[in-house]
Amino acid sequence: MLTGQQYLDSLDDGRQIYLRGERIDNVATHPAFRPTIEDAAAGYDRYFQDGPDATAPYYSISRSVEELRELEKVQLTWDMLSTSTATGINALMTAASRMRADLPENSERAMAWLEDAKKRDIRCVQTITDAKGDRSLSAGKQEDPDSYLRIVERHKDGVVIRGAKLHITSAAVAHELLVMPTKRMKTGEEDWAVTCAVSVNAPGVKIVNTTFAPPAELDWREYPASALIGTTEGFVIFDDVFVPNERVFLAGEVEHSATFAHSLGLWERLGSLGHYVELADTLVGLAQVISEANGTTKIPHIKEKISGLIVYATMLRASLEAAITNATFTPEGWASPNELFTNAAKFYAASEYAVMIRDLHDIAGGSTLTSPALADLENAEVGSLVGKYMKAMPGYDAEYRMRLFHAIRDFTADGVGAWQLVTMLQAGGGLYAQRVVATKHYDMEHARQLALKVAGITAP
Amino acid sequence: MLTGQQYLDSLDDGRQIYLRGERIDNVATHPAFRPTIEDAAAGYDRYFQDGPDATAPYYSISRSVEELRELEKVQLTWDMLSTSTATGINALMTAASRMRADLPENSERAMAWLEDAKKRDIRCVQTITDAKGDRSLSAGKQEDPDSYLRIVERHKDGVVIRGAKLHITSAAVAHELLVMPTKRMKTGEEDWAVTCAVSVNAPGVKIVNTTFAPPAELDWREYPASALIGTTEGFVIFDDVFVPNERVFLAGEVEHSATFAHSLGLWERLGSLGHYVELADTLVGLAQVISEANGTTKIPHIKEKISGLIVYATMLRASLEAAITNATFTPEGWASPNELFTNAAKFYAASEYAVMIRDLHDIAGGSTLTSPALADLENAEVGSLVGKYMKAMPGYDAEYRMRLFHAIRDFTADGVGAWQLVTMLQAGGGLYAQRVVATKHYDMEHARQLALKVAGITAP
Amino acid sequence: MLTGQQYLDSLDDGRQIYLRGERIDNVATHPAFRPTIEDAAAGYDRYFQDGPDATAPYYSISRSVEELRELEKVQLTWDMLSTSTATGINALMTAASRMRADLPENSERAMAWLEDAKKRDIRCVQTITDAKGDRSLSAGKQEDPDSYLRIVERHKDGVVIRGAKLHITSAAVAHELLVMPTKRMKTGEEDWAVTCAVSVNAPGVKIVNTTFAPPAELDWREYPASALIGTTEGFVIFDDVFVPNERVFLAGEVEHSATFAHSLGLWERLGSLGHYVELADTLVGLAQVISEANGTTKIPHIKEKISGLIVYATMLRASLEAAITNATFTPEGWASPNELFTNAAKFYAASEYAVMIRDLHDIAGGSTLTSPALADLENAEVGSLVGKYMKAMPGYDAEYRMRLFHAIRDFTADGVGAWQLVTMLQAGGGLYAQRVVATKHYDMEHARQLALKVAGITAP
Amino acid sequence: MLTGQQYLDSLDDGRQIYLRGERIDNVATHPAFRPTIEDAAAGYDRYFQDGPDATAPYYSISRSVEELRELEKVQLTWDMLSTSTATGINALMTAASRMRADLPENSERAMAWLEDAKKRDIRCVQTITDAKGDRSLSAGKQEDPDSYLRIVERHKDGVVIRGAKLHITSAAVAHELLVMPTKRMKTGEEDWAVTCAVSVNAPGVKIVNTTFAPPAELDWREYPASALIGTTEGFVIFDDVFVPNERVFLAGEVEHSATFAHSLGLWERLGSLGHYVELADTLVGLAQVISEANGTTKIPHIKEKISGLIVYATMLRASLEAAITNATFTPEGWASPNELFTNAAKFYAASEYAVMIRDLHDIAGGSTLTSPALADLENAEVGSLVGKYMKAMPGYDAEYRMRLFHAIRDFTADGVGAWQLVTMLQAGGGLYAQRVVATKHYDMEHARQLALKVAGITAP
Repeated sequence: MLTGQQYLDSLDDGRQIYLRGERIDNVATHPAFRPTIEDAAAGYDRYFQDGPDATAPYYSISRSVEELRELEKVQLTWDMLSTSTATGINALMTAASRMRADLPENSERAMAWLEDAKKRDIRCVQTITDAKGDRSLSAGKQEDPDSYLRIVERHKDGVVIRGAKLHITSAAVAHELLVMPTKRMKTGEEDWAVTCAVSVNAPGVKIVNTTFAPPAELDWREYPASALIGTTEGFVIFDDVFVPNERVFLAGEVEHSATFAHSLGLWERLGSLGHYVELADTLVGLAQVISEANGTTKIPHIKEKISGLIVYATMLRASLEAAITNATFTPEGWASPNELFTNAAKFYAASEYAVMIRDLHDIAGGSTLTSPALADLENAEVGSLVGKYMKAMPGYDAEYRMRLFHAIRDFTADGVGAWQLVTMLQAGGGLYAQRVVATKHYDMEHARQLALKVAGITAP
Repeated sequence: MLTGQQYLDSLDDGRQIYLRGERIDNVATHPAFRPTIEDAAAGYDRYFQDGPDATAPYYSISRSVEELRELEKVQLTWDMLSTSTATGINALMTAASRMRADLPENSERAMAWLEDAKKRDIRCVQTITDAKGDRSLSAGKQEDPDSYLRIVERHKDGVVIRGAKLHITSAAVAHELLVMPTKRMKTGEEDWAVTCAVSVNAPGVKIVNTTFAPPAELDWREYPASALIGTTEGFVIFDDVFVPNERVFLAGEVEHSATFAHSLGLWERLGSLGHYVELADTLVGLAQVISEANGTTKIPHIKEKISGLIVYATMLRASLEAAITNATFTPEGWASPNELFTNAAKFYAASEYAVMIRDLHDIAGGSTLTSPALADLENAEVGSLVGKYMKAMPGYDAEYRMRLFHAIRDFTADGVGAWQLVTMLQAGGGLYAQRVVATKHYDMEHARQLALKVAGITAP
Repeated sequence: MLTGQQYLDSLDDGRQIYLRGERIDNVATHPAFRPTIEDAAAGYDRYFQDGPDATAPYYSISRSVEELRELEKVQLTWDMLSTSTATGINALMTAASRMRADLPENSERAMAWLEDAKKRDIRCVQTITDAKGDRSLSAGKQEDPDSYLRIVERHKDGVVIRGAKLHITSAAVAHELLVMPTKRMKTGEEDWAVTCAVSVNAPGVKIVNTTFAPPAELDWREYPASALIGTTEGFVIFDDVFVPNERVFLAGEVEHSATFAHSLGLWERLGSLGHYVELADTLVGLAQVISEANGTTKIPHIKEKISGLIVYATMLRASLEAAITNATFTPEGWASPNELFTNAAKFYAASEYAVMIRDLHDIAGGSTLTSPALADLENAEVGSLVGKYMKAMPGYDAEYRMRLFHAIRDFTADGVGAWQLVTMLQAGGGLYAQRVVATKHYDMEHARQLALKVAGITAP
Repeated sequence: MLTGQQYLDSLDDGRQIYLRGERIDNVATHPAFRPTIEDAAAGYDRYFQDGPDATAPYYSISRSVEELRELEKVQLTWDMLSTSTATGINALMTAASRMRADLPENSERAMAWLEDAKKRDIRCVQTITDAKGDRSLSAGKQEDPDSYLRIVERHKDGVVIRGAKLHITSAAVAHELLVMPTKRMKTGEEDWAVTCAVSVNAPGVKIVNTTFAPPAELDWREYPASALIGTTEGFVIFDDVFVPNERVFLAGEVEHSATFAHSLGLWERLGSLGHYVELADTLVGLAQVISEANGTTKIPHIKEKISGLIVYATMLRASLEAAITNATFTPEGWASPNELFTNAAKFYAASEYAVMIRDLHDIAGGSTLTSPALADLENAEVGSLVGKYMKAMPGYDAEYRMRLFHAIRDFTADGVGAWQLVTMLQAGGGLYAQRVVATKHYDMEHARQLALKVAGITAP
């Protein structure tokens, strides 16, 4: 296993990382990556054990409802990169299981890579969304055939891939990229049916980043959530990257081209769901503590809005519980969350989120946006006056209240808040995608029978 | 145990029942009560066993999560009166448990009545909502002191009660009424703190009914859901009714005046929740089968609306599962559903129901309302023409489609549908009540800590 | 002009009317048609003037914004049949104007029929929605070619039509039916491109009715809204009906096959909009008066829900005003309401209606459904007890409150309420139709320019 | 009149301005104020005319519905500071009119100041929201009496005021501050009933700013909306500021303490409404152009969401029209927008905004957040690859699409977007405030009569 410091050292490996138009020398020391890096390094130190057999918990597989429930809980305490790694591992195991009968060799190759990755104690991210080009055309029909990542050369010892993968959180600070097709490929589209593991520093890999960490020039105390959470989103370019055979898990077997995306979708939505429960509880908490500090806890419309947030958080918690309690098991005995509950909940979470944020802003008030800076509180000329007027309820000082306003703004409307507004919708594919998957897994025949019973008829 | 026939016979006991301004001689033979009566009688026959030790399953108590889950499932197959009886039994047991330490004698009396009721195999309903008078005043301050049911005389061997209880489903066809205070009574309001069991045919009990069963004159084939479900709502008047001591479980002990209402609320909301899951699945099924018959299953906005119904049904199912999985247990080992999940789900179910019905109507189309009658199909002059033009998709005949339209109308907008529109909201006390109870049971301290962590501060 | 009595007499003309499987001898004397008939007869008496030049106001055309505004107001006081007649007249005028250049003769024929209808002082309804058969196929591709009404024979002096028209409010009590295609017909579908005026008693016309008037057996005092409004919906069958040439306004000119539907849609949505404003105000009023009688006007969540109803009513009123203020004019100087505002408002009205009804039910409480009958109040044994317990606030007697509960139930959930639940959505074609028309009339180019300005770019 | 340059020069007047803990020397040259300043200076140049009688249009008063309509339109082209000035002028005129009968001298003083301001061609902002302290207590009961701004000394020639005013957009770049009470003051609270005009550079005035202009270090091309709109929010402290009598319009006359707030609320909400219509159209436009560039204009759920945005924009436009068409007039003949329509629309705009933003994000997709920077496009190593993969539909280059993503992010979720998320709710006082004002101006008696008519009863 690696220590946090070893992890930091490992990132200075020649990787090609870009931000705001410039090449970054070393992500481990660049301020824009600081929150993400610190978070990930702490994740290494937390579980570090010496010895050749020690392995990180991120690599373990749940074999019962109880273990799955435990995983959900502990994941909330993990850093984002390790969580992403665990999601990828679980997805790859699920996919390996689903491929085993048809493509035993591919399945074995995936399992072997996993074992090796566990030993090396690396962190990986999943890269799935392609550039897509014209969305009304399939992969093989695009003007630019690279619009979906594809194999451009096949060699005895490996393949060369070309394309781009978008929206890859933490890509710049991981060790490896799990590449997989974004959707089912048809016969004739074999070159686009490719799944493999690629080192971040492999020649030809170039990662262009965006970040919603506040610029270094700003006072990060006003971005407490961004500083805590920290994310970089990678636009990952594969500019003719060679991948050796042992890291290639699919290379033309179109019948399993969607297996990886489905497996990943399943685990990502479960991971999201656990996170959304905590996010929703955090919204309730922010609403409650700011109304305490504002002195508005007894105002009926404030109470009503807080109870609305509570219902939201509780319905999400209920669906997480149901997804776990109704887990399914692979032939190997590996537990998977229930697809129906997971997807319905993801839809509910995403579609109601905007209204929850609105209500939190309505509860908190205009100072969410216009609260002076903490530095203003320290200014010799106006600091005490700012303190005097930003105090509301006896017992709550101005700084406490101001920090809450900054936290609410940062968490819901600015910095990481902007990130959440969009990712809440787009993670796992937009509102439409969740509707489709939920519908697919719903027991429609049961519903039809109930309807026919009420109507007193039988189907023709 | 009683057979269905014995149950029917037992109803001709002199009870004072009114409907549309007239006294009903015998509810067992009056057409307005037919669906309810038939439903209840079938419930007797279903489980009938001979012998002195045989008891109905409606009287059994769950002692584990598994038994509670089983109860939820089997309840959906029970008739409404027996379900109501089971709810009352469970509520009374929970209340008896909560009173045991403070009022052991009252607790024992309730348990003894239960044992006796089980032996007699009777059915009972809960009567809770009072007339209430001026809602801004408490029970003891009303212009008319009978606005809340109260003890008007206390005798050595019992008490005399006066008042009215509203919205009592199936009251006219039950054997006994469980009377309990609708809310917490304060010191000085001892006379209003009364819980007891009263025979429906006790002198002074008068039940004025409303029913949403279609009038006998109409063709019940166009009311398939009403005919199946059938409900009568009783306005129950206690016009100085004597209740012997052994049937009085509370008579002034104001500290436990809310114990029964809370216990009942808990079980009623769980019973409702199981019912709502089935109701939601039925809506999905109705939407699906009518769009099959209309030939609209591939129209995008129809698919989207059906998926919205699916999310609704699934979120409700998830919360039912969570309410059961997170059951709590009394010292006696009796399982109770989780209050937080139950109440949040009840709120969600009720507040979204209107939108679900709207979407079902939008999916089904205008013939929901304007479909000709089935009798028109049989008319010699126009029957074949009605059949010709009410046919839409090949493979689905006109009658099938017309019956579906009538079922949707009856189930959601008319007959039992009108009943559902209002009871979905009002059962358990209106949207506001669910908000309040959910808030009370939510772990707010956990949420506050999450908020403070995101803000990087500690509470003052 | 005709008097109310002359109108009643005119209905006994041999028309073939069916209800619940039976032929109706004379609609003017059948109880199921009573509210509609009384309403329409009063509409005749109201404006009756003697003399050959006297004409009903239902036939006048607005030529300015002011006249259009006046029309909107006075229409709310008209009976439903006359309103329908006025809508048809306006639609036919608009269509005649739009056809004038291409088909001057057809246009003239429509105008001549109008002049004659005005003189005869008849009432007419529009028949537009076809049976439709398989909705994925066009009119000319149906298994049953009569799924859309069509010309089956062409003679020198007229045409013979066959088909059915659905959801025709008041058809059974009108004099003439304005028949028009439900959608654009293509080349090759000339037989389905037919618009004409047909007498209700023409041989081959058969009208199968549904009604939401309460059955005669019930106490109509509990259906005050249904008794006031009264509707019958006609399923109108054209079983090879001959139409003379002077009444045929389109018979194959496919390029104008959609002109009538568009013209009608415009006027129907405006008529609806005026009605929805009044409907919304009525909901506000019902919410307010029942909360006065319940004594809940000061409860915050009640006040909040009433204010939500007020916003709904006000937004509808605003859009009605904008639709009139922004009227467009035909070359003849005839005013038409603005399509964009009318359709957006219709969508808003229909999509929010379900939530408004839910809130009204939540405000009113469970007695909306379970209030005893007014006859119970008159019963010697229980009447005074019902009165005692149905009284809530001092100053409001039980009967007043009970009548309000019955009115709310009847107006929103039962009787005419069921009718409103569905027609609010389906009138003018379902939520989807309004979205489409609103989009078509929106100034998208203006919006695009605003977007490009914010982005600081120009379109490619 | 002043030129833009004269305006810029006028700002270097010793005013005490703070940002992020530091005193700003000259707002006219500080980068954080650049967009606001440039915007305001352009507003001066636009209408500049030489000569002593020339006056800016911001100072003119509407005297007819037509002029009010014209004002609404032209305002959309004005800079934010001038718009704010016009709003303040209109509000002060309305207040002067309302005070005229009771307090003629105060009224005259306000009118005199206005005339002088017009001559000096200054810009002013309204300062209304106080610090408020404990919200459950009134102004006179606060622990800190300065929680609401008040008169602390009264002199022969003027008064000294102390307190703070929050959320004051553009305060730092205006010339004068119109100070007024945030709510009605009661007898005994005379010192808090103060309205006056204060120079921004008056001794004791200190303005602490927040800004959502992007930091200078970032590439403003990615903040096109923020760069265009630009706002600073001032936290304005009055640290014992002397105000001469001729600038004091209220100083203890509690009966008119709410006159100014009501007048301002009216004009601010109208100004907002015009702005919201344009904002809503901009959202429609952004949704349309990004879906063109993404190639998703034909996907049904995209079309449906765009039509939802269209309905939103159209309902807002309708209510703006109705507010103007139904203007009221003061005795002086000055037009005021209709309060009912204005407030209902403000509520609708604010409460639906969150859902509109959600739908826009769902339409646009994840690149809203993760689009690479424009600088990345110019990077020699990866620029062409970013361009290759950020291109979607033929005919739309990568830069066009990327600029749209940045515009959407900046306009709705980050930078000015964060500002809009909160101000959309809080401007004019939160959702609750609009509900209250709309309710106050609704014709409830008309609604009650409609309800009673439907119920067939008269009120007791």
